[in-house]
Amino acid sequence: MANLFVDERDVKFVLYEQLDIEQLTNTAKYAEYSKEMYDMVLEQAWKLAENEMAPANRKGDQEGCVWKDGKVSVPECYHRPFKMYQEGGWLPISEDVEVGGQGFPVVVGLAAIEAFGAANLSLFLFAGLTHGAARLLEVYGTEEQQRTYMDKLYAGEWCGTMCLTEPQAGSDVGALRTKATRNDDGTYSISGTKIFISCGDHDLTENIVHMVLARVEGAPPGTKGISIFIIPKKRLENGELVDNDVVCGGIEHKLGIHGSPTCVLNFGENNNCIGHLLGEENQGMRIMFQMMNESRLFCGLQGQSHASAAYLHALKFAKERAQGPEASRLKDPTAPKVPIINHPDVRRMLMFM
Amino acid sequence: MANLFVDERDVKFVLYEQLDIEQLTNTAKYAEYSKEMYDMVLEQAWKLAENEMAPANRKGDQEGCVWKDGKVSVPECYHRPFKMYQEGGWLPISEDVEVGGQGFPVVVGLAAIEAFGAANLSLFLFAGLTHGAARLLEVYGTEEQQRTYMDKLYAGEWCGTMCLTEPQAGSDVGALRTKATRNDDGTYSISGTKIFISCGDHDLTENIVHMVLARVEGAPPGTKGISIFIIPKKRLENGELVDNDVVCGGIEHKLGIHGSPTCVLNFGENNNCIGHLLGEENQGMRIMFQMMNESRLFCGLQGQSHASAAYLHALKFAKERAQGPEASRLKDPTAPKVPIINHPDVRRMLMFM
Repeated sequence: MANLFVDERDVKFVLYEQLDIEQLTNTAKYAEYSKEMYDMVLEQAWKLAENEMAPANRKGDQEGCVWKDGKVSVPECYHRPFKMYQEGGWLPISEDVEVGGQGFPVVVGLAAIEAFGAANLSLFLFAGLTHGAARLLEVYGTEEQQRTYMDKLYAGEWCGTMCLTEPQAGSDVGALRTKATRNDDGTYSISGTKIFISCGDHDLTENIVHMVLARVEGAPPGTKGISIFIIPKKRLENGELVDNDVVCGGIEHKLGIHGSPTCVLNFGENNNCIGHLLGEENQGMRIMFQMMNESRLFCGLQGQSHASAAYLHALKFAKERAQGPEASRLKDPTAPKVPIINHPDVRRMLMFM
Repeated sequence: MANLFVDERDVKFVLYEQLDIEQLTNTAKYAEYSKEMYDMVLEQAWKLAENEMAPANRKGDQEGCVWKDGKVSVPECYHRPFKMYQEGGWLPISEDVEVGGQGFPVVVGLAAIEAFGAANLSLFLFAGLTHGAARLLEVYGTEEQQRTYMDKLYAGEWCGTMCLTEPQAGSDVGALRTKATRNDDGTYSISGTKIFISCGDHDLTENIVHMVLARVEGAPPGTKGISIFIIPKKRLENGELVDNDVVCGGIEHKLGIHGSPTCVLNFGENNNCIGHLLGEENQGMRIMFQMMNESRLFCGLQGQSHASAAYLHALKFAKERAQGPEASRLKDPTAPKVPIINHPDVRRMLMFM
């Protein structure tokens, strides 16, 4: 079965013939995995992309996210595919079994999720940043932080975000002003405004875990004085989730991903926003680079996903659209029209793609 | 006064120093024109672009055109600037006085209207195609056709369109199926469907003159059997404008020019669409190339307009946006932030633009 998102034969060629990933079975880590299991993962991914995520793509973009009273709701059609994404265990597809993952090789996991980005980028962004936040906690979090937040993120029960930019601090992240004040119980009170936060607020999950750069009072200026905080949208108090004073101030307009809410987030407008330090004070930039670098790689995957979907859609159209006769009969107005893939210049363009 | 659409100094440099257009005054045709008159034209154009067309740009795109019951209405905010465009005599700025024009050199006319495309492309497209249709009639129309249609078009009282494409005939225009049947009175009855017709229907003017490719019954296949017809949206009958059975079947979705209606047009659904032959039968392709070539040149002007506006907006932002210190103090977090135009790589990007 051929889909219009990834070239299945091409993906398998790269995995099994070019990279020869079956050799991984010879390693202790992947001894229990096999080509059959990899194939199954790929086919399940392609099915989910084609049958569930793609149908919500255009529809979700047309409906868009809605911002009202400081809260964002996603297009209705996103809920079902995201639930299937979550329940299918796609978020930790390549994580170790010890952290709730499925333990597949990263190369297989990436090959699988390529189709998700191609089928519905807006929806895929929620999962991408959630994985990034979970992985950041896996590398730098305490045991307690991992149990409280990472487990929920990898399970897809909560989503994650990455909060760096402020109105006056874009490329110059060291100019940030979001402030953290130490509390007696070891937590921090946070206040400040972040902008351009992908999936910054939504109702796809009951909670959102923000990874936020801020400056502890008295810390040095510039990037050297930046710390990183875990700030949940809702914090646990006596086993209940209560509002943590994180309010969405609005959604940005972005071409083509209206289903993905790029938010202004206001932390601590009512002096009631609690954050938890990740790692040590003033180590925020170094720690955040783990998540930033994953996002950079993820951007490459997005480009690959879109290029793939664009090519396969163009290829299908070129095989169906009849215009003009064969080049050899160009001057004969009675010659039958042929699909445009027969025209040398169209083939050249497809090959360039 | 500097605007954000064209670089006024640059335009004048090209006209007066590079091209030295003042020399034109030595020719009989332009003996009565002068630099002062050219400057006045440019300044009036820049004022109209900045004060009237630009304010309707974003607003018009957000409101968009509305299609209802086979008719299109343009954004409300387009009416006033279009009326000023029309009354200012901008459509025939470079046409001869004999056809109602202002007789300015083409190079001055183009320099003037560059700002209109930069300020509001959607709105400018109405005028561009109207000029193309008028010019086509000037070159190929009979005296009667010129008085009935061309005069109204150059005056901007009616708009014009260019109708080539059909669902099965895009690049392969010879495959068109729109049919023309000779009537006893020398007119033709037209039936067929055209798609992707820029400004195909709207309420900016009371009438629209469509320049339409069709095949007269019995004509040869391919491009050799194509004729061109003048088909008004409303035809004159006893001095009254009556419906000519041209119905808009819908508007295409086009990114960024929602104020410009790209239409499906159905001609003769009720067998009541009358067309007038332009030139001779089966000469349609050759004749239409006059309008197509003007549109091609016009596309180049659009690109120039947008590049100019993009550069001037970027330049303004680069002078205002403060991020990071001077390169020489890059490692000093206490150094003052400077406007990003001070950063060598930003200057490089601006110079590339």
